[in-house]
Amino acid sequence: MYGIILAGGSGSRLWPLSRELYPKQLLSLTGEKSLLQATFARLENCMPAENILSITNTKHASNVKMQLSKITQNPFILTEPIAKNTAPAIVLTTKFVKDKSKSDPIIIVVPSDHLIKDNEKFLSTVKKGEKLAEMGYIVTFGIKPDYPETGYGYIETSDSLCEGFKVNKFVEKPDLDKAKSYIEAGTFYWNSGIFMFKASVLLAEAEKYAMDIIKISQEFDFSKSSEIPFINFDKMPNISIDYAVMEKSDKIALVKLESDWNDLGSWKSIYDVNSKDQNGNVFVGHVLDKNSKNSLVYSSSKLVASIGLEDTVVVETEDAILACKKDKTQEVKHLYETLKQQNDNTSIVHKTVYRPWGFYTVIAQGEGFLSKIIHVNPKQKLSLQSHNHRSEHWVILSGTAKVVLGAKELILTSGHSVDIPIKAIHSLQNPYDEPVEVIEVQMGDLLIEEDIIRYEDMYGRV
Amino acid sequence: MYGIILAGGSGSRLWPLSRELYPKQLLSLTGEKSLLQATFARLENCMPAENILSITNTKHASNVKMQLSKITQNPFILTEPIAKNTAPAIVLTTKFVKDKSKSDPIIIVVPSDHLIKDNEKFLSTVKKGEKLAEMGYIVTFGIKPDYPETGYGYIETSDSLCEGFKVNKFVEKPDLDKAKSYIEAGTFYWNSGIFMFKASVLLAEAEKYAMDIIKISQEFDFSKSSEIPFINFDKMPNISIDYAVMEKSDKIALVKLESDWNDLGSWKSIYDVNSKDQNGNVFVGHVLDKNSKNSLVYSSSKLVASIGLEDTVVVETEDAILACKKDKTQEVKHLYETLKQQNDNTSIVHKTVYRPWGFYTVIAQGEGFLSKIIHVNPKQKLSLQSHNHRSEHWVILSGTAKVVLGAKELILTSGHSVDIPIKAIHSLQNPYDEPVEVIEVQMGDLLIEEDIIRYEDMYGRV
Repeated sequence: MYGIILAGGSGSRLWPLSRELYPKQLLSLTGEKSLLQATFARLENCMPAENILSITNTKHASNVKMQLSKITQNPFILTEPIAKNTAPAIVLTTKFVKDKSKSDPIIIVVPSDHLIKDNEKFLSTVKKGEKLAEMGYIVTFGIKPDYPETGYGYIETSDSLCEGFKVNKFVEKPDLDKAKSYIEAGTFYWNSGIFMFKASVLLAEAEKYAMDIIKISQEFDFSKSSEIPFINFDKMPNISIDYAVMEKSDKIALVKLESDWNDLGSWKSIYDVNSKDQNGNVFVGHVLDKNSKNSLVYSSSKLVASIGLEDTVVVETEDAILACKKDKTQEVKHLYETLKQQNDNTSIVHKTVYRPWGFYTVIAQGEGFLSKIIHVNPKQKLSLQSHNHRSEHWVILSGTAKVVLGAKELILTSGHSVDIPIKAIHSLQNPYDEPVEVIEVQMGDLLIEEDIIRYEDMYGRV
Repeated sequence: MYGIILAGGSGSRLWPLSRELYPKQLLSLTGEKSLLQATFARLENCMPAENILSITNTKHASNVKMQLSKITQNPFILTEPIAKNTAPAIVLTTKFVKDKSKSDPIIIVVPSDHLIKDNEKFLSTVKKGEKLAEMGYIVTFGIKPDYPETGYGYIETSDSLCEGFKVNKFVEKPDLDKAKSYIEAGTFYWNSGIFMFKASVLLAEAEKYAMDIIKISQEFDFSKSSEIPFINFDKMPNISIDYAVMEKSDKIALVKLESDWNDLGSWKSIYDVNSKDQNGNVFVGHVLDKNSKNSLVYSSSKLVASIGLEDTVVVETEDAILACKKDKTQEVKHLYETLKQQNDNTSIVHKTVYRPWGFYTVIAQGEGFLSKIIHVNPKQKLSLQSHNHRSEHWVILSGTAKVVLGAKELILTSGHSVDIPIKAIHSLQNPYDEPVEVIEVQMGDLLIEEDIIRYEDMYGRV
């Protein structure tokens, strides 16, 4: 069996904790592992780690690689040049797996940002699905609804089929009355977005219903690079696998997902899956509360004091705060869209940006200068680089840094500083066992991340 | 006439915007002027500016001086070494005014942190009070209550007396039933904390009822310094003028305060005095809202997004956030007390600290280092100083700085940096017309504000 992890994501629903460049699957919301890491670990129960592929887009590739590298060796990651929807990703990756394995394996496709805690029951569902997939069905995993949710798509089942069901039809997000009738009927399931199929079956169905995707997919040669070139991919339709194939195919079966499941699609879901205190509250981080009830208060850095809140969600991050009535958290994504339209940076990045080598935080910005604190993890380095429009000044705060500057190598410790002139080739490195913290002051007429020339294609890019 | 502005304050009720070291009167809550500055301007309508004295304590003296210097020349400020209550401050200042003026003037005492917008009506109340004060009464200004507030003290009046009333008794904060009966009776007023008296009358009444305060007051010699020495003052009882004198004296009269009045004693009052949008909301700063009602959202630096809030107050500051049901904002002071007990710095200072020469913000702190961004206003300088336990490294971000370092003087601009060794005598100065911004990195074994030796007693202390 092979596994495909869909590791794209827009970061809109859990804003301000998620951002366009740091979407939900990268967050550790319920434990030490991020949702992406937990997803990988869940698949590892079902197959060898080397059979698990992730597909994401350029924006997230370095974070996905960094997170997966912490829990497995040489994670394989296909990188799309831009974010399209699930159909191109699934067809492309399926084709890739089929070609690479020179066989016709069963493939399970999973989103990377759902919460499933019971790995045993997930495994038993996978085994049921596997049988139907072997028989030539495209198997969807359905969740038995326990309330009339209007934010999910539903799947209507008909007769039993082995340990699952035949699928009658896919239905879009219903209104409340329809959702209630689905629950009463007892034959409707939520669509989890988890699919299993024999590679040849999915590709044959895609040939029938999504020939445009198949055609473009045939233009790629993965033998040379796992980075999908922009040319051609740009022509891919932006369409989900549900619309492109599932709703049209007559080879769909459904297996009931036996484990717990939560798509963590809103702050209310985060509240729901966490354990509460005696007043029904969830407090995360540095929170001081008096007499709140049924509320979620999430502090990621600063003190949040709450008094007498009821059914309210407060989320604090370094550069943006959300305060929202708990039954309105679905609207966060609209607010996020407003921010994007306003070109508000808080929709895109955190003030602190995580990189494979560590992280940096912008601490001050003004005309002609920009200042960051850069944190370099032990045994990590930033690439050899130069800038055409800025000089830099580094002050070492803690740890011991190795600074490459032209032909020189400097070993600098706490209190030392160094000037990096415009166009000078340089690299900040930490060959030692303690983290290095550096204040960087950039000076120049154009202070953007894109003003960078790299002189080696290292693992740890800036 | 003389005026005394009581400019102490604990900063507890409007936390996190107010702090122990930045209390309410220093905030600009409803306009450009701070409450302190507006109080001074109000008194200036009634008397010459040189007749207005402020009394505060060492903790607030530099901020009080800075703010008053912006609106008047050479403001006179008496400085208590520690915060006591109102009785010692009023007795001491009254004695000081009487001695200095070599006469027996009428004095009006006003808190510095109340909001009064209608200066004309305030002035007409003062004129009514003046007549009664001339007649030998200690005049309190009373506010006609329009609802049964349980958070204020009340004053019961009896017969008319000129344009005011005789006072029957002072009553403490009542319960709701009592407060309602006071409103029905029609003879009760809220105690505004504004008093007027002939200096000799107040001192005579204090001699009758607060001889301990009088005795200690006689030990001070203000001809030498306006800073009250700690010795002796420490023995002063911590008692309000209401308890010490007003409640006991039979020479009390009341004049109805004819202007608007708000003590801004909670975030709810801030909500009340601000104008609302069509949904009853008050938004201050960078706020993005969807469908909130009757709420106050206050952003002092970062984006605050609110969705569907009702009757809720959210206040964002650089290092602490408050989210509170609007009818519970009286509890903020208890929360503040909890923070103080926990030695939580957010009760005491802001991350950004205002100084006469500008301000600084702590941006990073760790073992052996502490980093700030220092903003020096045009034509301002920090004192000549040295440190026994730390070296400093300065990087100029913007503007042009003059750095005195031992016998040298350096003129540094954007991108320049300089090392200040341990024990080196130095000063950061801005003799020019543009602000100077500097990143300071302190390195050493003891990084505290107190590690400083000053070499001149300048106006602009660090």
